[in-house]
Amino acid sequence: MKVGIALFPSKQLQDQANSFRMRYDSHYAMIPPHITLKETFDVKEEELPTLVAMLREIAKKAQPALIDIYKVDSFYPQSNTIFFKIREHESLTFLYDQLHSEPFSQNPKYGFIPHLTIGQELSDDEHADVVGRLKMRNFEFQEVINRMQLLYQLENGSWSVYETFHLGEDA
Amino acid sequence: MKVGIALFPSKQLQDQANSFRMRYDSHYAMIPPHITLKETFDVKEEELPTLVAMLREIAKKAQPALIDIYKVDSFYPQSNTIFFKIREHESLTFLYDQLHSEPFSQNPKYGFIPHLTIGQELSDDEHADVVGRLKMRNFEFQEVINRMQLLYQLENGSWSVYETFHLGEDA
Repeated sequence: MKVGIALFPSKQLQDQANSFRMRYDSHYAMIPPHITLKETFDVKEEELPTLVAMLREIAKKAQPALIDIYKVDSFYPQSNTIFFKIREHESLTFLYDQLHSEPFSQNPKYGFIPHLTIGQELSDDEHADVVGRLKMRNFEFQEVINRMQLLYQLENGSWSVYETFHLGEDA
Repeated sequence: MKVGIALFPSKQLQDQANSFRMRYDSHYAMIPPHITLKETFDVKEEELPTLVAMLREIAKKAQPALIDIYKVDSFYPQSNTIFFKIREHESLTFLYDQLHSEPFSQNPKYGFIPHLTIGQELSDDEHADVVGRLKMRNFEFQEVINRMQLLYQLENGSWSVYETFHLGEDA
């Protein structure tokens, strides 16, 4: 099965992200607004308990994640994905590094650019228009997220949360 | 904020439910297939930690939930909701009772009918047609679910998982 690991922000931030996603994000109905820590990877169903135990250990060693949004940006020209850009912070880098070192698969293609996607799979024209407008607006928002989530993907492409892990707690 | 408490079945059962929901369930994109333990209720955001602590205690005292699907049924004429009917079992009744006794709100309107919705808000004609066809088919499926989930509802009507609770474990 396909799984992924993500942070889900507060309702307030999810609602704000959705106000853009409903118009610009083709994945709007597939998953709530999120910050990806590890992209989709394959796990056999019988390996899930081992994965959960590993994630629990990582979460215990982690700190709650500081989400410091400071602007809208885009991955253009790599892709037309538009996102809230999140300032790098060791609480995020720690999680990313742990989830991309042995025994996890690495991610040789990209470095870690913390972000919350608000648009994707737009035409070049629409992308340019939306990014142009949003870059002129002020987006600043800070919050701390104290849980990460393991999700699996259903056959219709939508995502279902399998487990939550508290960051930095023993509970 | 509006919250709810539900069980999410295995990927296999969710995929099967979605094969019907995509055609018959108006809430298809709002939430993955689930078994509702407590319908939507209101909680102030600052009360969430107390709610989480209460749910953790209930989950600890609970047993993993036996999901024994034995047919397709409908709430008609109360509503046109179509569902996989789940056999009553003390593991489910315990959770329902705990979540509907003090300090939780009760549910004076209905008794507990464990079910997994696969269709809703259909016209009377379509409802009759779908139920008629599905009742002639054999639906039997058993599994055990060992986690329940607290969700909150976003402004667009979709649901985001806030926390998972292990049933019957100390973890």
